[in-house]
Amino acid sequence: MSYFDQITRPTLLVDEAKCRANIQFMANKAKALGIAFRPHFKTHQSATVGEWFREFGVDRIAVSSFSMAKYFAQAGWDNILVAFPVNKREIELINELAGKIHLEILVEDAGTIHKLDKQLKHRVQAWIKVDVGTHRTGIDPHDTHQIDEVLLALNNAEHIAPAGFLAHAGHTYHAHSSKEIRSITHECTQLLSEIKKRYSPAYPRLKISYGDTPGCILAEAFVGVDELRPGNFVYFDLMQHQFGVCSLEQIACAVACPVVALHPSRNEVVLYGGAIHFSKESLRSPDGESIFGQYVRWTENGWKCPQESSYLIRLSQEHGILKASDELMRQLHVGDLVGILPVHSCLAVDCLNEVMTTTGNSIEVLV
Amino acid sequence: MSYFDQITRPTLLVDEAKCRANIQFMANKAKALGIAFRPHFKTHQSATVGEWFREFGVDRIAVSSFSMAKYFAQAGWDNILVAFPVNKREIELINELAGKIHLEILVEDAGTIHKLDKQLKHRVQAWIKVDVGTHRTGIDPHDTHQIDEVLLALNNAEHIAPAGFLAHAGHTYHAHSSKEIRSITHECTQLLSEIKKRYSPAYPRLKISYGDTPGCILAEAFVGVDELRPGNFVYFDLMQHQFGVCSLEQIACAVACPVVALHPSRNEVVLYGGAIHFSKESLRSPDGESIFGQYVRWTENGWKCPQESSYLIRLSQEHGILKASDELMRQLHVGDLVGILPVHSCLAVDCLNEVMTTTGNSIEVLV
Repeated sequence: MSYFDQITRPTLLVDEAKCRANIQFMANKAKALGIAFRPHFKTHQSATVGEWFREFGVDRIAVSSFSMAKYFAQAGWDNILVAFPVNKREIELINELAGKIHLEILVEDAGTIHKLDKQLKHRVQAWIKVDVGTHRTGIDPHDTHQIDEVLLALNNAEHIAPAGFLAHAGHTYHAHSSKEIRSITHECTQLLSEIKKRYSPAYPRLKISYGDTPGCILAEAFVGVDELRPGNFVYFDLMQHQFGVCSLEQIACAVACPVVALHPSRNEVVLYGGAIHFSKESLRSPDGESIFGQYVRWTENGWKCPQESSYLIRLSQEHGILKASDELMRQLHVGDLVGILPVHSCLAVDCLNEVMTTTGNSIEVLV
Repeated sequence: MSYFDQITRPTLLVDEAKCRANIQFMANKAKALGIAFRPHFKTHQSATVGEWFREFGVDRIAVSSFSMAKYFAQAGWDNILVAFPVNKREIELINELAGKIHLEILVEDAGTIHKLDKQLKHRVQAWIKVDVGTHRTGIDPHDTHQIDEVLLALNNAEHIAPAGFLAHAGHTYHAHSSKEIRSITHECTQLLSEIKKRYSPAYPRLKISYGDTPGCILAEAFVGVDELRPGNFVYFDLMQHQFGVCSLEQIACAVACPVVALHPSRNEVVLYGGAIHFSKESLRSPDGESIFGQYVRWTENGWKCPQESSYLIRLSQEHGILKASDELMRQLHVGDLVGILPVHSCLAVDCLNEVMTTTGNSIEVLV
């Protein structure tokens, strides 16, 4: 691949064909189920990759911050949900965005709704965050008192209209099998359906927005759900692979790292590619060791996982240490580029500002 | 503090007085020992903070990448060591820098020196990286055959002159006591002195450059060392505090994070401040739990650690979960700004692009 010569520093390479196949799978699945598809763009944070979604009819997106919303609004997206508890300190930016696009926010307490409503100049839609078991944010689905309060506050608000109930079943990331992920999805969507049913007499237009990549990929049914909001599936990563959500072959991005030193005596290759490029997310390898990435071999039009797995075993600020077999040690030279599948693609993408496709096209990302 | 109102997103706050005191301590120590001081600027990555060093006579710096060298060269630094195994894929940038400033690089094999020499257009100085026990990069100090080879290659090179031997005793980060850190420093500097002695008849001008913040702060003597190269001491962090290298009060930076949700039923505060702001570096708390940061209370001119410690116990992409006492739960409100001391300041600094002093002055950083 001739564009390799242009790569001088850790660079995210995206396999566009794999990426489009991942998008197509999820878009078709949502379509077949008759559920709206609102992909979470926090994974790729890229206007270029965003365009690939449009071909599959995607017209609404989720992001994780108002600054990301601004970036995608500038890229022409006009229906954006900021799927993070609304940060009212950003009221100026919220007003700027709400004046331009259809903006949706996330709320979970009446006090915030009251205060925000007074400062808003334009109408926004608000989803009520429901905690379906992850215990990160959101209202306990059984706390109908708080849900009542929040709905009342939304009903009384001048600039905020209730959109419905939103959940992110992040506890699928602690599941031990595909079966468990499916069962979590079943339970969570059931919980949400019950809430929707309870409030539908008074609020017949409330919808359900549902997220998390493992559940959206593996589950077959999403009873009562109006909108699916997965994000990571666009690239996948080693974590999703370990959960049985994707194959290694479906992972659509790899970090190209220059080899800067070789230590054959301990089978270690020193890469320019460290914690500031991969973040410090780790997984357990089959041997129980902490790993920060997995080696892939370049091919004519992308990369391939060799039979024998080699892992990134240590990271410091700029250094990555790849544990290599004798054979791989012999193959690699100082100055080569090595491909590494990231443990968590969302974090690696956030770290890396240099992104391109495996066909050598530049990809624009939020910096 | 009125500038607080301007802070809308996770922002690094720097206590300039603490920071200057940290710089003064290290500069004075090096001066008293008669050793040159080459601070590592990878920790702050800031032209503004860099200027504070000049007042203490600092005229040479270390950085961890050629892009960082470019940034500081533009900020007026003309003696820069890139303390990372030279990445020859960046030859264009290396030549650009070597044509403008006194550039020093790191080498550890003869092959790289030969190839680099052919592509260099300007003279650079090269330090030979010696592995004093960290086993990340560098030549085994007992492998005189490889050292001979590298020195010969440097001697024959047209554009690369040998500067001396460089080591980073990163294994102090695995020490269990201040005493052990001092003893590692003693052993490592002794090793380097022996190498210098061995080669001084043939190469009388070779120097020793020595790094790692724990050793530089705690050790009292650095026999044979010509230059000290610590970095983290400018800000310190929870990791250095856990090693007994600094007090909590000496930590000179804290991340200001907006409160976006409160969960009193489980004593949890949800912050806008996650893995993309702190990286995923963790420590063990006194109770053996993984922590990602420690809460501080704002004061008139900075922050203070409360008697009872509260920790950031979970991080996802944008969310941080602060475990709070009943009292702290009562004090905090949605929309407040919370101060968090980072586990590893170098990584948090790299993540955060918005940086200011506790007196409200903006700090320029490499983006």
